[in-house]
Amino acid sequence: MAACGKAIRTRSRYAASTQRVCFKPAGHGGKCEEFPYLRHFVIAAPKVADKIIRDSIMTTGAAWKSEKAGPNRILRWVMLRSDEELADLGINMANLKPQVVAKLREKAADYSSCMAVAQKLTSLAYGMANSPEAPLEIQHELEELGVPVVLGRTSCLVCGEALDFNLFAAAKRGKAEIETSHSNPRLHIPANVGFAHRACNIAQGNKTVEEFYDWITEILARVRPGQ
Amino acid sequence: MAACGKAIRTRSRYAASTQRVCFKPAGHGGKCEEFPYLRHFVIAAPKVADKIIRDSIMTTGAAWKSEKAGPNRILRWVMLRSDEELADLGINMANLKPQVVAKLREKAADYSSCMAVAQKLTSLAYGMANSPEAPLEIQHELEELGVPVVLGRTSCLVCGEALDFNLFAAAKRGKAEIETSHSNPRLHIPANVGFAHRACNIAQGNKTVEEFYDWITEILARVRPGQ
Repeated sequence: MAACGKAIRTRSRYAASTQRVCFKPAGHGGKCEEFPYLRHFVIAAPKVADKIIRDSIMTTGAAWKSEKAGPNRILRWVMLRSDEELADLGINMANLKPQVVAKLREKAADYSSCMAVAQKLTSLAYGMANSPEAPLEIQHELEELGVPVVLGRTSCLVCGEALDFNLFAAAKRGKAEIETSHSNPRLHIPANVGFAHRACNIAQGNKTVEEFYDWITEILARVRPGQ
Repeated sequence: MAACGKAIRTRSRYAASTQRVCFKPAGHGGKCEEFPYLRHFVIAAPKVADKIIRDSIMTTGAAWKSEKAGPNRILRWVMLRSDEELADLGINMANLKPQVVAKLREKAADYSSCMAVAQKLTSLAYGMANSPEAPLEIQHELEELGVPVVLGRTSCLVCGEALDFNLFAAAKRGKAEIETSHSNPRLHIPANVGFAHRACNIAQGNKTVEEFYDWITEILARVRPGQ
């Protein structure tokens, strides 16, 4: 079963060169939708649905928006465009600090990768302990999209510990306890994306998880030798 | 040899209940000074001298200053005062977010601890590989203050690797590569303070270093069992 694939109209000023499409099953009834498999989370856990869409398709930029700090979130595929094309869209990369530019460019990803990431994150969220149960129809759709739900098997991408769905709602000092995470922070493709504890994601920093494991192995060899 | 200990006048509006004092050797000539042992760094590495003073005596608060985010830096010993006393100084804790209040209160420390921290950090900076050589007179003063310089022996408080003085000037994305670090992030006393790589300090987060080592030991046991 293929996805519908029909064009979805958006009002975004960035729409020009990227066509967003419908991911309902081909031959579906009703109107086309880009994230049909999120229709249950939209009701059962709307903040999680928002987070999955946002983290899949948007870059994170500066912590707050300003002329100098740059746009705080922008569509990842827009960041694939040249400085000239971006200037036409009102984003003047030359005005931004080099570190902001690097951060934005690093988070660029094409549209189909972003869609595949959203699908995978949805499946992983349903796979967490204490997740709302996925309706069978959605389980079937996610399976058809190549990302079957594996109940209770979703673990932190960094520390490997099982993740509890309730951590989405937990927050310390205003920061959610689960973050979207990348095995390689510079690669936004499904094979490389998952969820992690906030503390794990922060500790990993801009290292790949393998580099992170090598690094902490070295630390322990130095500070707790002979263990 | 004791320190002079004579009162130093400051123009700070926070001065009221804490008397800042001179740390030159007792019976010294010239005017009294609070950080006499930094007189060489002030010339040879002024940013390091600034950093040592700032990190020793100031809290870090919000990343930027605003009515709601709170003061971004304030004297640590001022944060020991009650909400009522702070209100008299124009700092209205009740208007700040709970997480900002917690962060500020956590960094409170008394004046003598802050002074002892500054002395220790100075000694540790001189103890880094490639540090400017400490003038003998300053080495002697630091020894008298109980923090003798041990050349080339200063290592990262978190990862244990030797620290190079040149990392003070290195920066990635605008952030210095060496940070002041606490074995227990909630305790600003000399025995608990040192320098760390920025990435190490971030990875440690609000754990003590021992908790951090336990945590990474558990991670490795899960993700690389049998190693």
